[in-house]
Amino acid sequence: MKKLILILMLAAIGLAGLDCAGQKVQRYGMVLGVKEEKIPEYTKIHADVWPGILKMIEGCNIKNYSIYLHQLDDGKHYLFAYFEYAGDDFDADMEKMKDDPLTRKWWDICEPMQIPIKNRQEGEWWANMKEVFHTI
Amino acid sequence: MKKLILILMLAAIGLAGLDCAGQKVQRYGMVLGVKEEKIPEYTKIHADVWPGILKMIEGCNIKNYSIYLHQLDDGKHYLFAYFEYAGDDFDADMEKMKDDPLTRKWWDICEPMQIPIKNRQEGEWWANMKEVFHTI
Repeated sequence: MKKLILILMLAAIGLAGLDCAGQKVQRYGMVLGVKEEKIPEYTKIHADVWPGILKMIEGCNIKNYSIYLHQLDDGKHYLFAYFEYAGDDFDADMEKMKDDPLTRKWWDICEPMQIPIKNRQEGEWWANMKEVFHTI
Repeated sequence: MKKLILILMLAAIGLAGLDCAGQKVQRYGMVLGVKEEKIPEYTKIHADVWPGILKMIEGCNIKNYSIYLHQLDDGKHYLFAYFEYAGDDFDADMEKMKDDPLTRKWWDICEPMQIPIKNRQEGEWWANMKEVFHTI
């Protein structure tokens, strides 16, 4: 039972490790749906994200952040995000990001294009996934 | 049209960039399904992957390789993989991996637990996803 709690905690906070430069990072994998008719717009704005958004991501210690798109067998389209967190307080950095007016404006544009997964945890928009494997 | 072909080519070969140590890498995001009843076994073997498999992954220039698991709204379970390729010839390294008897043995165990996405390209098992965003 203790082991299960530990596993769930690790899944919730991201899994810690070292990146290729030997820096301590926590890895995160997240998923949500994207509306088919919004894919061209979503793709277009993400090919040229506002500089202030990229600066805020960096300032909140998020790095090596990629988003992938694929249509699955249910015919729906999903976005899969991978990033590494290099700071000391993920929750505090996420609060900082949430309080940034430009980021809120960006999210106001992105969120109507997205369809969050129903089983996401309270407070999540993108659903945190469980890491089942990692090798450096 | 040329731009579309370039985008499709980049999606097929992974997107190039620098990792945190300044090394040239191509990033890959991949997806497939996993049978619900096989999740405990899949998770268990991936928590303790055979050393020879990890050595072959490293020898084929694959690094920072993570696999995530999540149940989506269709009730099915999916595996999402993210890794970075640091070599000069991805196809040749994949052939090398495919020719390794231990890797084939590992795949013989894993593949019956997996359900590949129907729209995967010819020759794919895991379906390559399109990268729509990246920041370092």
